[in-house]
Amino acid sequence: MTSLFSVEFEDICLAASRLQDVANQTPVLTSNTLNEHTGARLYVKCENFQKSGSFKFRGAYNTLRQLPDSTSEVLTFSSGNHAQAVALAGNYLGIRPTIIMPRDAPSVKRAATSDYGAEIILYDRNETSREALALNLAKEKDLPIIPPYDHPHIIAGQGTVALELLNMHPNLDMLLVPCGGGGLLSGSALVAHAMQSQTRVIGVEPEMANDATLSFKSGILHTVKNPDTIADGARTLSLGELPFQIIRSFADNIVTVTETAIIHAVKFLWERMKIVVEPTGALGVAAVLSEAVSVEGMNIGVILSGGNVDLPQMASYFRKL
Amino acid sequence: MTSLFSVEFEDICLAASRLQDVANQTPVLTSNTLNEHTGARLYVKCENFQKSGSFKFRGAYNTLRQLPDSTSEVLTFSSGNHAQAVALAGNYLGIRPTIIMPRDAPSVKRAATSDYGAEIILYDRNETSREALALNLAKEKDLPIIPPYDHPHIIAGQGTVALELLNMHPNLDMLLVPCGGGGLLSGSALVAHAMQSQTRVIGVEPEMANDATLSFKSGILHTVKNPDTIADGARTLSLGELPFQIIRSFADNIVTVTETAIIHAVKFLWERMKIVVEPTGALGVAAVLSEAVSVEGMNIGVILSGGNVDLPQMASYFRKL
Repeated sequence: MTSLFSVEFEDICLAASRLQDVANQTPVLTSNTLNEHTGARLYVKCENFQKSGSFKFRGAYNTLRQLPDSTSEVLTFSSGNHAQAVALAGNYLGIRPTIIMPRDAPSVKRAATSDYGAEIILYDRNETSREALALNLAKEKDLPIIPPYDHPHIIAGQGTVALELLNMHPNLDMLLVPCGGGGLLSGSALVAHAMQSQTRVIGVEPEMANDATLSFKSGILHTVKNPDTIADGARTLSLGELPFQIIRSFADNIVTVTETAIIHAVKFLWERMKIVVEPTGALGVAAVLSEAVSVEGMNIGVILSGGNVDLPQMASYFRKL
Repeated sequence: MTSLFSVEFEDICLAASRLQDVANQTPVLTSNTLNEHTGARLYVKCENFQKSGSFKFRGAYNTLRQLPDSTSEVLTFSSGNHAQAVALAGNYLGIRPTIIMPRDAPSVKRAATSDYGAEIILYDRNETSREALALNLAKEKDLPIIPPYDHPHIIAGQGTVALELLNMHPNLDMLLVPCGGGGLLSGSALVAHAMQSQTRVIGVEPEMANDATLSFKSGILHTVKNPDTIADGARTLSLGELPFQIIRSFADNIVTVTETAIIHAVKFLWERMKIVVEPTGALGVAAVLSEAVSVEGMNIGVILSGGNVDLPQMASYFRKL
């Protein structure tokens, strides 16, 4: 089967083989309390339990694995989860990454990234564009750049999350996917489309960073600069070009949630399901609990995209309620 | 097969049938990071994902389910998890519980207990014995008491945790079980013995509340009054009589861990495995990480007994490191 884009379903299946025995096949949790609160049956795919603490490991490993054998160093830029993912995947494959990271990235993400053996270069979000910084450095050191989402190998890797979930639960009416740069959402939409499933794939982003919603609805790529959302994975300037095209074709909708709804979701996941989920990871649950989507009586898949949040941060979120 | 005690393996199997489709068959997680830290292969049974947030639901439901049909009210005393469990099981079975709870029990436990519809009576640990209070009240109101651990139906229910784990992973060399009043440990030891498994069953308790260790080693029931451990589930005065007899016969050892080791384990489970585990629930992981037991090269089962801890409390633990 061919696709209109440079990512095909076959690429996602090949990514799944590369990730076999390397990535975790993450568990799918259910919660009566969550079902009672929503009137739906929810299947929660726990990528917060993925290696490096988020789904990003899948795309990073899939990409690094396909570099020429001679590659010993790579460069990337990331607010955190992609950084950790590239660092860990590099560690597995004997590739040393240099990571360009914003100075205000969560400390738990910075620490884990350097623990995995990556070199970190900090920058100020308000002064520099990380893309420009990366391009200069890549040129200077002659290094390949591993982008966080706008790359077919990244998207193929991220698509394996939905592949696992839909193989396990083929009868989902809806799949809710956190949306930042759109790697996970585009991969998920591709999978649901290719599997000819009845599943409607819906992106969720913070109201404060609603560029993807605007882009999806207008067909023109919108940007939002440094939105002050606690969902740091969704602070991306815009959807990537390739994710945008795929999402426009195959995703069914994008909805937004408030900061308060995000914090309530993080708290619910902590108190009632006993799992640590970062704000971006809780976007799908926030959409369900705040009724940004109607789910009554349906089978709903939700991807929890990551769990990299430290305790002082989580405490500061809870204080906002 | 008969046992020396008033709990037999058959009772545990019957409890498992009663709990089928009522309790969660909790997932067993693995973590490469944990395996790398310990040199062992660990299988972590997540009773923090159990209904009411701890394994206690199993024993409570198994016990309430066997009361005469005419029972509409019960009485219990608990530092928290048993209280929530009885409250929820009562909710399921149309039985209204009154719960005697210490004034300093974690707020998340108090709130959940009253959410489930139980009546709560608070007492001061330093002034009153909860057993005496319960006996008086039970007499006055003519109510059956549901004890937290010293009862064959409770022990049979708690034994279903190890039953599930050993059915899934029959080749465990060792099973580490948090120990407070001994309900979970005695049930686990009975199961491993009855299944004629090679699995050594080892209890873990806080060094500050080492009554079970002393009792196990001496054969005489030791007590420890109001130990100031953060593992509030292990602040019990002593092992229950029946758990004590079973543990003496079938458990292989009891070891202790420091408060610091417990906090490190809670933190590790949060940061590396993204799960919320209360201090008592983390005793087994604390034993492994602090090398209170030697596990190198072995297959190790660990029961995480519960996850009922609120964020301010967890923050206060982390500040002690």
